[in-house]
Parts: sequence; structure tokens; C-alpha cells
Amino acid sequence: MSILFNLTFFQIASIVISLLAFGAAFWLYKWVSSQPSSNQRIAEVGKLIRNGANTFLAKEYKTLVRFCTVAAILIFIFLPVPVWKGNVLDNVIMAVSYILGTIFSGIAGKIGISIATIANIKAAEAATKGIKPSFMSGFRGGAVMGMAVVGSSLLGVTLVFLITGDTTALLGFSFGASSMALFAKAGGGIFTKTADISADLCGKVELGIPEDDPRNPAVIADNVGDNVGDVAGMGADLFDSNVASMAAALVMAAALDKTAGGFVNAAMVFCYAAIGLFASLIGVLSARMKEGGDPTRALNTNTYVTTAIFAVLTAIATYAFDFKWEIWAASAIGLAVGVIIGIASDYFTDDRRPPVHAVAKACESGPAFTILSGVSYGLISALPSMIGIGVSALAAYKICEPLGNGYAMFGISMAAVGMLSIVGMIISNDAYGPIVDNARGLVEMGSLGDEALEITDSLDSAGNTVKAVTKGFAIGAAGLTVIALLGAFMSEVNTAATEAGMISAGENYIQGFDIINPVVFFGLLFGAAIPAVFSAMLMLGVDRNAQRMVAEIHRQFKEIVGLKEGKADPEYDKCIEIATHGAIKELIPAGLMVIICTILVGIIGGVQAIGGFITGNIISGLLFALFMSNSGGLWDNTKKYIEAGNNGGKGSDAHKAGVVGDTVGDPFKDTAGPSINTQITVVSLVASLTATIFLTFSLFG
Amino acid sequence: MSILFNLTFFQIASIVISLLAFGAAFWLYKWVSSQPSSNQRIAEVGKLIRNGANTFLAKEYKTLVRFCTVAAILIFIFLPVPVWKGNVLDNVIMAVSYILGTIFSGIAGKIGISIATIANIKAAEAATKGIKPSFMSGFRGGAVMGMAVVGSSLLGVTLVFLITGDTTALLGFSFGASSMALFAKAGGGIFTKTADISADLCGKVELGIPEDDPRNPAVIADNVGDNVGDVAGMGADLFDSNVASMAAALVMAAALDKTAGGFVNAAMVFCYAAIGLFASLIGVLSARMKEGGDPTRALNTNTYVTTAIFAVLTAIATYAFDFKWEIWAASAIGLAVGVIIGIASDYFTDDRRPPVHAVAKACESGPAFTILSGVSYGLISALPSMIGIGVSALAAYKICEPLGNGYAMFGISMAAVGMLSIVGMIISNDAYGPIVDNARGLVEMGSLGDEALEITDSLDSAGNTVKAVTKGFAIGAAGLTVIALLGAFMSEVNTAATEAGMISAGENYIQGFDIINPVVFFGLLFGAAIPAVFSAMLMLGVDRNAQRMVAEIHRQFKEIVGLKEGKADPEYDKCIEIATHGAIKELIPAGLMVIICTILVGIIGGVQAIGGFITGNIISGLLFALFMSNSGGLWDNTKKYIEAGNNGGKGSDAHKAGVVGDTVGDPFKDTAGPSINTQITVVSLVASLTATIFLTFSLFG
Repeated sequence: MSILFNLTFFQIASIVISLLAFGAAFWLYKWVSSQPSSNQRIAEVGKLIRNGANTFLAKEYKTLVRFCTVAAILIFIFLPVPVWKGNVLDNVIMAVSYILGTIFSGIAGKIGISIATIANIKAAEAATKGIKPSFMSGFRGGAVMGMAVVGSSLLGVTLVFLITGDTTALLGFSFGASSMALFAKAGGGIFTKTADISADLCGKVELGIPEDDPRNPAVIADNVGDNVGDVAGMGADLFDSNVASMAAALVMAAALDKTAGGFVNAAMVFCYAAIGLFASLIGVLSARMKEGGDPTRALNTNTYVTTAIFAVLTAIATYAFDFKWEIWAASAIGLAVGVIIGIASDYFTDDRRPPVHAVAKACESGPAFTILSGVSYGLISALPSMIGIGVSALAAYKICEPLGNGYAMFGISMAAVGMLSIVGMIISNDAYGPIVDNARGLVEMGSLGDEALEITDSLDSAGNTVKAVTKGFAIGAAGLTVIALLGAFMSEVNTAATEAGMISAGENYIQGFDIINPVVFFGLLFGAAIPAVFSAMLMLGVDRNAQRMVAEIHRQFKEIVGLKEGKADPEYDKCIEIATHGAIKELIPAGLMVIICTILVGIIGGVQAIGGFITGNIISGLLFALFMSNSGGLWDNTKKYIEAGNNGGKGSDAHKAGVVGDTVGDPFKDTAGPSINTQITVVSLVASLTATIFLTFSLFG
Repeated sequence: MSILFNLTFFQIASIVISLLAFGAAFWLYKWVSSQPSSNQRIAEVGKLIRNGANTFLAKEYKTLVRFCTVAAILIFIFLPVPVWKGNVLDNVIMAVSYILGTIFSGIAGKIGISIATIANIKAAEAATKGIKPSFMSGFRGGAVMGMAVVGSSLLGVTLVFLITGDTTALLGFSFGASSMALFAKAGGGIFTKTADISADLCGKVELGIPEDDPRNPAVIADNVGDNVGDVAGMGADLFDSNVASMAAALVMAAALDKTAGGFVNAAMVFCYAAIGLFASLIGVLSARMKEGGDPTRALNTNTYVTTAIFAVLTAIATYAFDFKWEIWAASAIGLAVGVIIGIASDYFTDDRRPPVHAVAKACESGPAFTILSGVSYGLISALPSMIGIGVSALAAYKICEPLGNGYAMFGISMAAVGMLSIVGMIISNDAYGPIVDNARGLVEMGSLGDEALEITDSLDSAGNTVKAVTKGFAIGAAGLTVIALLGAFMSEVNTAATEAGMISAGENYIQGFDIINPVVFFGLLFGAAIPAVFSAMLMLGVDRNAQRMVAEIHRQFKEIVGLKEGKADPEYDKCIEIATHGAIKELIPAGLMVIICTILVGIIGGVQAIGGFITGNIISGLLFALFMSNSGGLWDNTKKYIEAGNNGGKGSDAHKAGVVGDTVGDPFKDTAGPSINTQITVVSLVASLTATIFLTFSLFG
């Protein structure tokens, strides 16, 4: 690598490309905003949704500020070493990095919500003109979120590293992003399913009025939920994974660079991440759909195009800058496995495949069989992805191992970076879903006609199909990232041990985590139970919160005269308030439980127990995340499959059983399952950040 | 230890006490058989149940013979080393030990089924005279099974070790027991739930006739199911765990004894196991209940008495024979944790505790909430047991570690032996449940009056309560046993490596399994997915099989004239045939999947990958076993709680939702959950037995 192309060059290039992404987001934002909208009714409802989403965001951010203030103070006092033992400036850097992590993620979330609540209106109106303009409004709205998330994550990581030159600060930034993700994904997940379930239960089941009927007091909350849960939540989740993968790779690259005497490995991380963003940028801007085309194919084509651009450009960069081909291979494998996991998830949730047909058949025997078969296929669906994640980690490790000590784990982290390289595209596809889902609701509420409804139906269905792929992808990416974080945890412990004078430079305090060590085994068992408990707490939270909202809906129908007849408006904001308030309230204990257990394990068994704890957490977390997401998607599509006229069709007993399955699946797939991603990252980061403390203190370690 | 009290002394003592247990079983068998029975109708139905159970056993054993013949031939060819490489006699010993393992377990199962199908009649008739004689018939019937299982497992292990002096042969014996358990527990589990669900669906739901109504063609199959699933299945499962814990302890004791130059550790295993059996013997024979007493308390008192006797007698033996107190402490901790896990399971399934009340409340909101809350509490319920198993392994390890190299893992295995010491009592309590459940059915079919029905209801309810404890206990015991088997696996690998000349004597080929090794990590991820897939396959098996039986029941009601009016008898045997045939058919692919995946992982990653695979399997296996057993128990008791008049009572919407929960819970708690125990043991044993092969051959190991 010449003097010109040093680390700074790639950092500046990353900043430039991040800014390009912001530019693209701005241009797309303008484009979407400039689309015509004239329907009064839609504008009104759209405004209600926007205000509702803002209410949630305001409340969420307010609570987050409190939470983060406490966390930042604790970080300042204790990290990276207790403030009375080390350099105050280091502690300030950590605390500030943490706060920046939440802010960068928060900004991306705010932009995403903002455009999503405009794009839904535009997509609804455009549906009266044809599928193409409606698709473009939906997709480009989603793309704003995609570009904002990836631009701001790359920008944040680069700035923090450029200014501090400190990889531990990066972990602090990453932890900030995780805190945000915990609130956005788990809190948003509770919000959206509270509203969804309550709206269905009171509307469709009790009153027999259609979905999205404006008389239903929960209907706006339901539409808001799509935005805060799926747009902001998924965005924060992938922001978190993306930052964590870069942070883990940079922690290990920095350790390698010290040995190698250069900055080639860190440079490579920035180079690949920037190329990934650039590839997504091209993919997003070039996305088109022909009039009469298939939206699912259009979305998938974008993904494949982006993947190909990334693979080719990184190969050229590797050649041009004389990077190591083994690392390139690792990142390419990561990306390929990501796509494969997506396809596997798709198989188990696609209504043209045997699993959906089998569950639909089971619906004919009643709800119990619906649940049993859905649970069973969900459990089986985890197998290919678990093997895929294991194989990609194994392959990346083995390919990079010959490069020297430390390269093997760096290879795994670069596989994660590779898998997450196209995350800009993935988020665009994912955010498209709730936008067109909302658009469908608006078309119905605005009475825009059957043709427009048909168009938004087909766009919505494409969103659901693609969602299975993006969810599988998100879980796979989180899996590889946390394996890399385990490496980062070891790096942190070894660095801390060197600094504490426990070992001399170049030595390793821990070489690994031996399963036969009972402290590690204890950690494994404890850690494995955490995702189960965490997801259970969130599901019970949805349950409790839905009960509150149902009571409120009943109250409104009882007290507001003329509501049932459509002569009076319901108090939508009351339902939004309940969903918001409950989501935050139910989330806090679950989040604290995770953090406290991690610290508890550290106190009991020290760093070895924490190594086991992280591993147990990863393994069972991936298993439960895959199981819950796929079971949920399977039930959702089964219900739709029956509604399309199969196995008795709408109104049949099979359909009723299908609705039960779908209701169980809702918190599975939209609250608990995807939140586990974030939970795993939180555990890994808390462990890495507190490593120094448990190095010198533990009961049995 | 004097010359008199050598290993042989303790082996002979074990044989004597085993024979005493058989003697007690014989005496109890006679006692139960001699109880009066005069009711013609009950005798008839009882005979149908007995014949049905025998039909299943005959079919099961026939298939097992075929399966075992193939397995024995493969074992003869390949184990302990390929027959062309080693001593033919060793291979013969392995194959014969394997076959003996199946036979000893099979005999115990046959005895248990035989008495259970007599005791149910006796308990039913005795119920007309009062709760005390009815309880004694039920309990002593169960005790026959308890004594037979523990007697035959201790006898088998002692004989094999005494004759061959070879610990690898013990693993062969243990694998035989596991094969039997796989058929009995998983096959029996599919049988019992097929019959149970079909009988309920067609009887209670479609026709509105009561449970145990003789017009229902599936009613006898349902009663047979209680016997083959709960009596024979649970017996084979605990036979398996008991043998595996002794085998694992002896494998490690033998390795220690070589170093120490004596046989004191192996002697200790036999001494403790024999005392455990003796304590159970005393507990079982002294069990009484006062007229008007509480059967739950009577059953639990027996358990505590046995526990206390074991603790005191082993302390005396440790003092008298100069054993190591650290090992005694380890086994005492194992036993204590077993009891604690049982109590934790009880909390989550007891209808006087908050979880049942919360799920009953959720039932009022419909079946989806019933499922969500039941799943949530089931997931949470796993936490204390996971921590308990981890802590007991950690404590046993730390206490025994100072004794020297190898003692730490031996300590864990002795914790498992300690936990399983009272297994004779546990099986007696457990087998009591289905006997009095059957008795309740017979009282109803024989119209013995409301008072008798009330008595058997209260006995049945006690059985259900105690069952939660015994199930938690069984899972905990399996957990500690498989951790010990992981140690045995390492021992086997090191011995094989020494014999192959890969290392010199005293060296270790593997020291442990490092999580950071990607081959181990791959194994962890793969292994963790297996219990999920295995349980899913069994549940889908129940589903498919129930569909076949429902079709048969519909056919009978259509074709047999006068059946609905009670004027013609249904063809009970047809339903039994379907349940039997389907159970075996559905079980085979699940069992083969487990064995093939284990071997596949060995081929891919060698012994290190297998170490990870076993560990991933244990961790997620325990988690799923606890979750499924406890969720299932929770739903079962919730339904009963509602039926007792709470939350709307029988016939309410909440009750209907409760029935859905119970139906989902049935295969959770009686098919999938407890079968995972066996699945874990099978993986560990297949891995240990094939260790030699993967030592010299693997793709990436």
C-alpha cells in the first residue's frame, strides 16, 4: 500500500461516501415529497399516523435520554477503567462515544420515520395511477431509511475512530447504538403488536368490522405501529449490527496492525464497508420496476445486483490496494451465506412451499394443531441457518488462519462485515414493507377504489415475502457479528491484562474458553436461558399492554355516543398513548434483566464465565430468533393463504384457527424474535466493556 | 480400605441389593395382585387395556430387535475399534453389552407394564372402600416398576463391569439402554398423545361425550397410552439416565484408579449406587397413608425420607470405608439440586401459584393469549433449573478439584449419581400417576359411584402434582449425567489416542474444547439445533398419527351401526393398531436423524467438533426439555383449574381456550419434552463410542 493510500485515505473516503449516502437520502426524500397528493381524507389520516409516530418517538427518546444519562454516568465512572484509577480523558471519551452512538442511530431513525409517514400517503395516491409509481414511492421511501442508517453508521464509526484512534471507544459507540436498538426494536415491537392485536381483537373479532376501519379506536395506533416497529425498529437493529460488526473488526484489526506495524487491516475494514455502502447506493438509485412487473422480483433483483457489485468492487480494491485475498474470500463467504440464510427463511414462510400448505391443512383440525405444526416447522427452519452460520464462521476462520496469529478471528469479523455490506439495500427493502402496508390501509380508508386496493395488495404481499428474507438476513448477520464480538471480548481482556501488568506485551491472558472448565459451562447454561426469559418477558409485556388497550377500546365504544355508527370519531390518541406508555414500561425490566445477569455472571465467574455466557447466549439466541421469526412468518402467510380461498377460505373454521396462529405469531415475529438480535449484542458489548473489572474481581473465576 | 472391602465386595453388595430390590418388587407384585377385584365390567375393560399395552410392547420390541440387530452388527464391526484392526473378542463384548443393555431395560419395562395394568383395576375397586387402600394399590403398583428399573440397572451395570472389567463395554451397555429408551419414551410418547388427542377431539369436542366414555373407539388406546408412555417410557428414560450416570462415573473412576493404583473410586460408585437403591427400598416399603390423609404429602414425604436416608447412609459409608468426603459432598449437592429443580418445576405448574392463575386469566382473552402466556411462563421456568444444573456442576467440580487431576470431572459424575440415587423412589411416584389415572377411568366406566370417583380424582390430582417434580428431576438428572458423559467422552478419546500410539501414557490428547476453535463453535451451533428439530419431528409425528386415528374413529361411527347409541361395541383394537404402527413409523426418522447428524459432525470436524456438538446439544436440549415439559404441565393444570370453577368454569370460552392450550401442551410435555432427555444421552453415547474413528479421520478436525 503506497503512502497515499493509508488508513486516513480510507477513512476520508468512508466519510465522503457516507455523505454521498446522505445526499442520496436527501434527494430521494425530496423526490418522494414532490409526488402528488390531493385526497383530503388520506391526508388527514396520514397526519394522524405521523403525529402518532412522533408521539411514540418523543416518549421513547425522552426515556432513552434518561436511561442514557444514567448509563453514560456509569460509563464515565467505571469505563474503560474506574475513573480514580486511570486517565479521566479516556472515561470522557467512552461516555461521549456512547452518547454519540445513541444520537447517530436516533437521527437515522427519526429520518426514516419522517419519510415513511410521507411515503405511505404518496404510495396510496400513486396506486390510482398504476403499480409502477406506487412501487417507486414505497421503495424510494424505504431507501431513504436505508441510506440514512448506513450513511450515519459508517460516518459515526469513522469519525469516532478518526478522532479518538481508540477501538474501545468504538465499543462504547456500538453500545450506544445497542441501547437505542433495544428501545427501538423491543419497545417498538411491543407497541406495534399491542396495537395490532387489540385492533384485531376488538375490530375484526368482536365487532366484525374490517381491518383499517376508521371507527376502530386502535386503527391509527396499528398503522403507527408498522412505522415504529418495522421501520424505526428494524433500522435501529441493523444500525446496531452494522456498527457492531465494524467495531469488532476494527478492534481485532487494530490488535493485528500493532503487530504488523501498519494499518492495512483497519484500512481494509473501512474500504470494504465504504464499498458496501456504495454498492447499496447504486442498487437503490438504479432500482426500477416496469408497469405490470412483479414487485417481489424487482426487490430481489436489487439485492442480487448490490451483492454482485460489492463482490466485484471489493475484488478490484483488493487487487489495487494489495489487500489479502483470504480476507476478501471471508467477506464474500459471509455475504453468500447471508443470502442463503435469507432463502432458507423464505422457504419456510413462502405460501407456494410445503410448510405453509401443511400448516394450512393443520388449521382444518383446529387451533391446537395450527400451533403445534407452526411451532414444529419453525423449530426445523432454524437448522439450515444454524449450520450456515457455523459453516461460514468455520470457513472464514480456516481460510484466514494461515495469515498468522489473530487473523482467523479477524476473518470471521470480516465475514460479518461482508454479510452486512449490503445492509443499505436490505433496510430499503425492509422499510418498503410497512410503507406499502400503510398505503394499503390509506387506500381503504380513503376509498380510492378496488383497482388501487388490488395494486397495494400486491405491493404489500411482495413486502411480506421479501421481509422473510431480510429477517433471516438480519439474524444471520447478528450471529456472525456476535461471534466476532466474542473475539473482540478476548482482545479487550488481553489488552486490559497487559495494561494492568498481569501479563507482558505480546502474551495472551486468555487463549480461549474451555467448555470443560465448569465456570465456562455454568456461563453457557445461564447464558442460554437468557434469550428465552427475555423473549418471554416481552411477550408477556405485549399481553398485559394489549389487555389495557382492549379495555380502553371497550370504554370508548361504551362512552362515545355514535362511534359504532360512524357518526363520531374515536379518540385515537388515547390508544397511541397506552401503546407508547406500556411499551416503554414493559421493556425496561427485560433490558435491565439482561444487563444485570451479564454483570452477575461476571461477578460469580469472571471473564471465563462471561465467555461461556456470551456463547450460550449467542447459540440459544440465534435458535430462538430463527424459530420465532420463522414460525411467526409462517402463521402470517398461512392465514393469508387460507384467506386467498384455500382450505375452506375466509370465515371457515380453518380460517379461525389460522387467525389464532397469526395472533400467536405476531409477537413471535415482530416483538420477541427480532429483539433477541439486539439482546445478544447488548450482552456481548456489556461483557466487553466491563471485561476490565471482572479481570481483577470475581468470586469463583 | 482394608483388603476385605475391595471393589469386588462392593460389586457383590450391589448385586445382593439389586436382588433384594427384585425380591421387593416380587413381594409388592404379589401384594397388589392379591387385592380384591370382583367387578365384571372393570375386569373386561382392564383386560382390553392390558392386551392393548401388550400389543404395543410386542410391536415395539419386535422393531427394536430389528433395529438392535443392525446396531449390534455395526457395533461388532466398528467398535471399540474396527474389527480388522483390533481384538475380535473386544468387539464381541461391545456388541453383547449393547444387547444386554436393551434386554435389561426391556425386562424392567415389561414388569412395569404388567403390574401397572393390574394395579389400575385394583386401585379402582379399592376406591369403593376408601382412599387409603386405593392409594396403596396405586403406589405399590408404581413401586414394582421403581424397584424393577433400579434393580435391573444396578444389576446390569455391575455384572457387565464385573465380567468384562472394561468401562467401554459399560458405555455399550448404556447405549443399549438408550436405544430402548428412545423407542419406549419417544415411541410411547407418540402413542399416548396420538390416542389422547384423537379421543378428546372426536369424543369431547365433536360428539360431546365425556372422557373415558366406552363408546369412543379411542378410549382404550388412550388408557393404554398412559401405561406405555408414562409407565414404560418414563421407566426406560430413567433406566437410561441411571445407567449412563453410573457408566460415566465408572469410566472416569477407572481412569483415576489406574493412576492411584487402587479401585477406591470405582468402589465408591458402586457403594453409593447400592445405598441409593437401598434407601429407595426402605422408602417404598415404609410408604403409608392415613385414611383421610393427603396423597400429595404422602408421596412427597416418601421422597424426602429416601433423600435423608441416602445422605445419612452415604456419610456413614464414607466414614467407615474411608472414602473422600469431597466426593460425598458432590453427590449430596447433586441430590439437593435435584430436589430444588423439582420444586422449581412444581412452582410453574402448581394451580395454587401465580403462573397457573395468570394463564387462566389469559384464557379469558382466547386461545392465542393462552398459548402466548403459557409459552412465556414455560420459557421463564427454565431459568432456575438451568442455573441450578450449572451451579451444581460448578460446585461439584470446585469441591473435588483439590483431590487431584481428573477428580473434578469425577465429582460432577458423582453429583449425577447422587441426584439419581433416589431414582427408585422417583419412578415409584411417577408410575403411580398413570395407574391412578387409569383407575379413575375404570371407576367411571364401571360406574362405581361418585364417592369412588371423588377418591380417584384426588389421587389422580396428586399424581399430576408430583409428576411436575419428577419430570423436573428427570431433566436435571439427565443434564448432570450428560455433562459427566462429556467427561467420559474425553476419557475415551484420550485412552484411544494412547492406545493408537498418538500420545504416550499419562498424556492427554485433548485437554478440553475451546469455544474459540471454530470447529467447536460449528459443533455448538449444529448441536444446539438438534433438540429443536428432534422435538419438532416427534410433534409432527403425533399430528400425522392423530389425523390417521381421527379418520378411523369417523369411519367406525359411520360404519358400525348402533355405536353412537351404545348398542354396539367399537373396534378398540383398530385404534391401538394405528397408534402403535404410527408411533414406531414416526419415531425412526427422528432417531436416525440424531445418530446420523452426530456421525456427520464427527466426519466434518473430528473429536473437537463433536465436543462442541455434545455441548450445544446439552444446553439447548435442557432448555427445550424444561420449557416444553413445564409449559405442557402449566396448560394441563390451567385447564383443570378452570374446570374446577375458576375464570368462568367448565364450558366457558376460557375453558375452550384452556382446552386448546392443553392440547398443544400434551405433545409438549409427554412426547417432545421428555424425549429430549433420551436424545441428549444418545448423542453423547454415540459420540463416545465412535470417538476412536473420528480421532484418526475427519475433514477439518
